[in-house]
Amino acid sequence: MSTEQTFYPGLDGVIASKTDISFLDVENEEIVIRGFDLIELSKKVTYLDLVYLLMNNQLPNREERDSLDQELRKEYWIPKELSSILKLLPNQTDSMDALRTGISILAGFESELDDISIEANRRKTIRLLAKVPSIVANSYHAKMNSPMISPRNDLSYSANFLYMITGKEPTQLEMKAFDQTLMVYSEHEMPNSTFTARVIASTTSDMYGALTGSVASLKGKLHGGANEAVMEMLLEAKTEEGMEMLIMQKLQNKERIMGFGHRVYMKKMDPRANLMKEALLELVETKGNKELYDMCVIGEEVMKREKGLYPNLDYYAAPVYYLLGIPINLYTPIFLAARTIGICAHVIEQHANNRLYRPRVDYTGPRNLHP
Amino acid sequence: MSTEQTFYPGLDGVIASKTDISFLDVENEEIVIRGFDLIELSKKVTYLDLVYLLMNNQLPNREERDSLDQELRKEYWIPKELSSILKLLPNQTDSMDALRTGISILAGFESELDDISIEANRRKTIRLLAKVPSIVANSYHAKMNSPMISPRNDLSYSANFLYMITGKEPTQLEMKAFDQTLMVYSEHEMPNSTFTARVIASTTSDMYGALTGSVASLKGKLHGGANEAVMEMLLEAKTEEGMEMLIMQKLQNKERIMGFGHRVYMKKMDPRANLMKEALLELVETKGNKELYDMCVIGEEVMKREKGLYPNLDYYAAPVYYLLGIPINLYTPIFLAARTIGICAHVIEQHANNRLYRPRVDYTGPRNLHP
Ligand SMILES: CC(C)(COP(=O)(O)OP(=O)(O)OC[C@H]1O[C@@H](n2cnc3c(N)ncnc32)[C@H](O)[C@@H]1OP(=O)(O)O)[C@@H](O)C(=O)NCCC(=O)NCCS
Ligand SMILES: CC(C)(COP(=O)(O)OP(=O)(O)OC[C@H]1O[C@@H](n2cnc3c(N)ncnc32)[C@H](O)[C@@H]1OP(=O)(O)O)[C@@H](O)C(=O)NCCC(=O)NCCS
Repeated sequence: MSTEQTFYPGLDGVIASKTDISFLDVENEEIVIRGFDLIELSKKVTYLDLVYLLMNNQLPNREERDSLDQELRKEYWIPKELSSILKLLPNQTDSMDALRTGISILAGFESELDDISIEANRRKTIRLLAKVPSIVANSYHAKMNSPMISPRNDLSYSANFLYMITGKEPTQLEMKAFDQTLMVYSEHEMPNSTFTARVIASTTSDMYGALTGSVASLKGKLHGGANEAVMEMLLEAKTEEGMEMLIMQKLQNKERIMGFGHRVYMKKMDPRANLMKEALLELVETKGNKELYDMCVIGEEVMKREKGLYPNLDYYAAPVYYLLGIPINLYTPIFLAARTIGICAHVIEQHANNRLYRPRVDYTGPRNLHP
Repeated sequence: MSTEQTFYPGLDGVIASKTDISFLDVENEEIVIRGFDLIELSKKVTYLDLVYLLMNNQLPNREERDSLDQELRKEYWIPKELSSILKLLPNQTDSMDALRTGISILAGFESELDDISIEANRRKTIRLLAKVPSIVANSYHAKMNSPMISPRNDLSYSANFLYMITGKEPTQLEMKAFDQTLMVYSEHEMPNSTFTARVIASTTSDMYGALTGSVASLKGKLHGGANEAVMEMLLEAKTEEGMEMLIMQKLQNKERIMGFGHRVYMKKMDPRANLMKEALLELVETKGNKELYDMCVIGEEVMKREKGLYPNLDYYAAPVYYLLGIPINLYTPIFLAARTIGICAHVIEQHANNRLYRPRVDYTGPRNLHP
């Protein structure tokens, strides 16, 4: 054990890991993903390219992408026993909790569960990546008492994901916007959910368990849960004036405004939020509902004026999902599905070069008591 | 974000939290639990007293303990829908994975799930504490295709727990030994699983989710999973000579020996291991199987001689569970059940005074690549 160290609440600024995966270069306003700029990638490539990059440390050529695509399509299905169990969950079960249960159960069907070699971990990553969307979509249908939708492996990853949720084949524009949300959500250095996964994996526990823990983490309102809260706020506000009033009122009540602020870029715009703002504008231009866009802009202005805070990704991803016809309680599960690749990449890296996470405490309680 | 900081792999020696709950005072060889010495407590009080202490910051008087006892007895049962689902899990499901699934599902039955006030968190702690043993025992029976055993609320917490596993009312000696294992497992400062729970809870995610993550963590062989691995080693070794040979052989293969070493007291005996060693001796004196005790002692000597390493709690808890007739694959789930109170106390503390855990990384990958 090292000597006395300073305590940084929330491990603010503490280095938790060496990593080759990603880095938030706040000074240069770049989200570095294996050497590339996430925003540039999100404009130029597709989610599958990014998945390949995160897994293999380089972008794929066409053949490599096709082969990944094929591997994923073969794994879209989930065991029918799992579908049956999803239907048995109590109706009030939160979507994130259903997803957590689904991934936890899936571990029991995994033949390579305890093999934490890089190769086996890669194969499990593919399977998880392919199956998480089916759990996300079908736990929703189970909750709504609507029929389960089988995956269609004639559809690409993003198209099939949207299709399983809405039951409709998406348009080109919808698919592109959705695919881009998956890209911006895919990986982001060491947020709470990724950290959770690495901490769990460091006991040499398996990838499914690590991901289960990430779901629990991402559910929280200070983390992934914010995107659903943003949409609820927008719907409550109804108009631009309503938005300003609602935010002002929440601030007066000392409430936090969801979708604003970020540990790493607290006083700067999240670059991903900018990209989603553009995507939102493109969507409202085709689908209408310019009011929604304008409300978001007002909210952004009010928060800059009142608190000097900027929107994070969740703020602009929420209305994009809304316009794609996605039920609000699937926003955070979709975030998890998109982030699965990032989390799995971190688990692979952790298992490959491991040391158990086991910090200490600053004890502030009494001493020398006796029963 | 703070300025450049040193990287400590595994957060070795890093202060992750202020806490009033517990502290490993290695210098004075004391495990401090709310001011008391855990070993002294484990000799003088019962698991329920310790539960009360962890929840309420003081030891109970008789009335307070009785009232806690009654509250717990009322909550031993689990929803029958949950029992049915446990039977549907694939047979190869690991016991820790079944437990993780069970707790995850239970969240859907919790009416106060999203209320993270101290009061609601306390009520949830009681319910979790009471129900986790039922999940542990009955996921085992489901796996074995043996009939589920309903809890008996005429039995004390520890007696009912053992009864649900073995189907037999334990003797006084068995109950005392089991209760003592629960005490030594109850709380231990900031091990990986407790840290996992606090990290998850810091997103304001709920207690059930935090505990689900802890199960995933505790499963790992470098953490709670060690107690099962120890028993398998003892059974493989069969004799004292066999134990020495097996350990020597594993060391030659550069394998870690489960049940030895600990981040905090690497070169000292874990005080809990000493207590369990005494409990083991008492058990073999009544139940026979002195050979098992002797094998453990030989293993201890070999490891001291060869590596300068000392046994941790798992090393001596494993044979105790064996003599209590507990199936090996329930050792880690029982550890989790016993630790539930410690983890919940940490979640309560985290929620009461929260800051999101969100550390940084040391990025070692490439830069300035373009698609
Ligand atoms: C993300 C977040 C947890 C990061 O915060 P952090 O680094 O832990 O910083 P703190 O929670 O210590 O907040 C620092 C200060 O900024 C304020 N603040 C931060 N985000 C705020 C928000 N969204 N609305 C209002 N105030 C906010 C805090 O109240 C605090 O003020 P104080 O010092 O007067 O108490 C925080 O910005 C937040 O809660 N945002 C809303 C939830 C959200 O959108 N999450 C998704 C993130 S991608
Ligand atoms: C618990 C444990 C993970 C703590 O270790 P840690 O603080 O992370 O320390 P490290 O893993 O960096 O180990 C330090 C050195 O001791 C050695 N070591 C530690 N525990 C060992 C063990 N049980 N058997 C053999 N060697 C061991 C390591 O191999 C390492 O040697 P090296 O420096 O030559 O590589 C470790 O002692 C261990 O793996 N024990 C066995 C599992 C176990 O019983 N866990 C239950 C803990 S309650």
